[in-house]
Amino acid sequence: MKAYKDMDREELLSLKAALEEEYKTLEAKHLNLNMARGKPGLSQLAITMPMLDVVNSDSDMRTVLGNDTRNYGDLDGIGESRQLMADMISVKKDNVIVCGNSSLNIMYDTVARSMTHGVNGSVPWCKLDNVKFLCPVPGYDRHFKITEFFGIEMINIPLYDDGPDMDMVEKYVNNDASVKGIWCVPKYSNPTGISYSDEVVRRFARLKPAAEDFRIYWDDAYCIHHLYEDIQDEILNILEECEKAGNPDMVYIFASTSKISFPGSGISAIAASPKNIEFIMSQMAIQTIGHDKVNQLRHARFFKNIEGLKNHMKLHAKLLRPKFAAVLDTLETELAGLEIGSWIKPRGGYFISFNSLPGCAKDIVAKCKDLGVILTGAGATFPYGKDPDDSNIRIAPTFPSPEEMEQAAKVFVLCVKLVSVERMLDKIQ
Amino acid sequence: MKAYKDMDREELLSLKAALEEEYKTLEAKHLNLNMARGKPGLSQLAITMPMLDVVNSDSDMRTVLGNDTRNYGDLDGIGESRQLMADMISVKKDNVIVCGNSSLNIMYDTVARSMTHGVNGSVPWCKLDNVKFLCPVPGYDRHFKITEFFGIEMINIPLYDDGPDMDMVEKYVNNDASVKGIWCVPKYSNPTGISYSDEVVRRFARLKPAAEDFRIYWDDAYCIHHLYEDIQDEILNILEECEKAGNPDMVYIFASTSKISFPGSGISAIAASPKNIEFIMSQMAIQTIGHDKVNQLRHARFFKNIEGLKNHMKLHAKLLRPKFAAVLDTLETELAGLEIGSWIKPRGGYFISFNSLPGCAKDIVAKCKDLGVILTGAGATFPYGKDPDDSNIRIAPTFPSPEEMEQAAKVFVLCVKLVSVERMLDKIQ
Repeated sequence: MKAYKDMDREELLSLKAALEEEYKTLEAKHLNLNMARGKPGLSQLAITMPMLDVVNSDSDMRTVLGNDTRNYGDLDGIGESRQLMADMISVKKDNVIVCGNSSLNIMYDTVARSMTHGVNGSVPWCKLDNVKFLCPVPGYDRHFKITEFFGIEMINIPLYDDGPDMDMVEKYVNNDASVKGIWCVPKYSNPTGISYSDEVVRRFARLKPAAEDFRIYWDDAYCIHHLYEDIQDEILNILEECEKAGNPDMVYIFASTSKISFPGSGISAIAASPKNIEFIMSQMAIQTIGHDKVNQLRHARFFKNIEGLKNHMKLHAKLLRPKFAAVLDTLETELAGLEIGSWIKPRGGYFISFNSLPGCAKDIVAKCKDLGVILTGAGATFPYGKDPDDSNIRIAPTFPSPEEMEQAAKVFVLCVKLVSVERMLDKIQ
Repeated sequence: MKAYKDMDREELLSLKAALEEEYKTLEAKHLNLNMARGKPGLSQLAITMPMLDVVNSDSDMRTVLGNDTRNYGDLDGIGESRQLMADMISVKKDNVIVCGNSSLNIMYDTVARSMTHGVNGSVPWCKLDNVKFLCPVPGYDRHFKITEFFGIEMINIPLYDDGPDMDMVEKYVNNDASVKGIWCVPKYSNPTGISYSDEVVRRFARLKPAAEDFRIYWDDAYCIHHLYEDIQDEILNILEECEKAGNPDMVYIFASTSKISFPGSGISAIAASPKNIEFIMSQMAIQTIGHDKVNQLRHARFFKNIEGLKNHMKLHAKLLRPKFAAVLDTLETELAGLEIGSWIKPRGGYFISFNSLPGCAKDIVAKCKDLGVILTGAGATFPYGKDPDDSNIRIAPTFPSPEEMEQAAKVFVLCVKLVSVERMLDKIQ
């Protein structure tokens, strides 16, 4: 394959004409495919259906400790669901509160509480002139939306293959008291799929924040979401590392079963130090009479234990592998050597992150849309929706079938080629 | 029966001696009964158990409109659950968002959002020096806890048999721009059981708030919680009345199925004007990926429609009537004519409110506790936990069995008598 950058004007023009022909063929197909959000596919939803039977009208509705899940009580979650979630994120049960159906909601509440009540007794952030969050990019759009919503200033931090640029993180956190948090997806990162190295996790744990109310917002969304059985990423336990480093209170860990059981009908959890847990519980006692314990019971009885969870994830992986392969194979076959884009082959998680030539992402997404393939909006993976290079595109391969995914990937690579060649020609002219 | 106030010292002393004998007898029984919280009893939980079967692994998980309840989407709740909740609170479906398992959580979020983001564009309350809420008393402790948590100043408003003192409400709301809200339980009020008269509802709707961001927090917790089939309270539709009065945006209505299906595993709703709904949705879109739609489907399919809901409430009422009767009969038999307490016989809801002689409530609750009967803490029905008269006691008769309730009621009246006679003697000495 000849790299586009090595082509002359004639070659590019003839390539463009050929691509436009291909475009017309695909246009005629009137596709309607959505790769915008990390939604489980129908086959994935199907494997969790038996969970709906484990709690039924004949069930004993009491927890192991004898509490009635149907009535008020157990504000921090029923014991067995706390144990399950604790094992999932490799912490102790006492460090875990099991909440409702959405870890995003816990993250929102955590920031909202800090705005009005500070962090463990610190000044409420709404009383401060400046509150900043560090945002490794590309990252999860919904994290950035939360901080944007509360008027928190966001600072881009480059995300490398082993984690965020820790020199920059240390510089900000250790010197600027208005830096109150950093959003992290440490394992199978959304969207790049990378996992933090041990060294990166240790450097996180050893931060010496200028702000006492600085916290690491550790969204362990994909902690057991491996794609393969032989190659799996594992990361260091941030809560333990923070303890060792004398920073026991510096991290909040978030997780949920949204992409394990059902999105929207799963259970979520926050894990933190005893001091943090106590502060969170004092607010939760005002906010709610408790979360849905029948659903917690349903999850605990269906998965039984961490082994049950892991086995369930193997079923998901089996369904996801061909979808990821459909995209990755197409990218490899169609784009390798052209030097018009790069991507990381993830070992887990829900996304494939693609970097086009600078200034092409928006146009690629728009062209895909014209051909009936919806991608996450370009820029969405950056704070304020602004990708300074207009380069990053998040591909979510989970919802369509493998066949549809292959079609969508073909549309995608065509649009990448077409936009790239147009941009090259712009430069030459 | 001779009223205590008409007794002389000798009579009171001999009465006291007799009551103390009775106290010893009850002490020896080592009772362990809890009338503290409005918790459904086991027999009530049992009637909802079949709901756990209506959604199972064989179910079609799609809504009437064809949306998959297991996946992301339907942020404002699935259509059929919105219709069900709309019918329950007598509003239109478009005015309703169905949320998670707790209407308390919606109320908390509503106040929290106002603190950080104001109300439909008004100045965030956290930026204001003074924010006040009116609190009809006695009222629901958890309402008061929310406003206390956010540092909102609470002003007691007397609650009469037909609703709050509307002269006082009008005076505050129409003249003081720092008054941003009022907590209301308009039907079968917690704890007095009274319902607002049509005139009171109309006066609410016709308020002319000094603050544009003033809202009525209308907690319609007991909207279909009638105790009897023949005598039922109905109240005017506040949303309609506010529209008619030119104040369409002035009210938020909250409701849930916590005391219809399962506490903690029900569904909740907020109803308001289109403008309010739009503002709430713009925040919810940041806060969550959506609420538990499988549980919404479970509720919609189990209850089917408003008739199904009402029929289910008849089953609850049948179980609750003997428990309420056990308390009310005991109060009537043991206390009528003694002039040491008053109470209202509720036609619905979850509580019986008792007013002792001034300065007796704390001692009565403490004495009951010594005899193994736990009541809601005295003062809890007032902001900051401070009942200026130390007189109101909330009795929650739903959790114990009718037999236990009768025992508990006997303990209660004995303690009322004993504390009252002690107080009389204090005065004479």
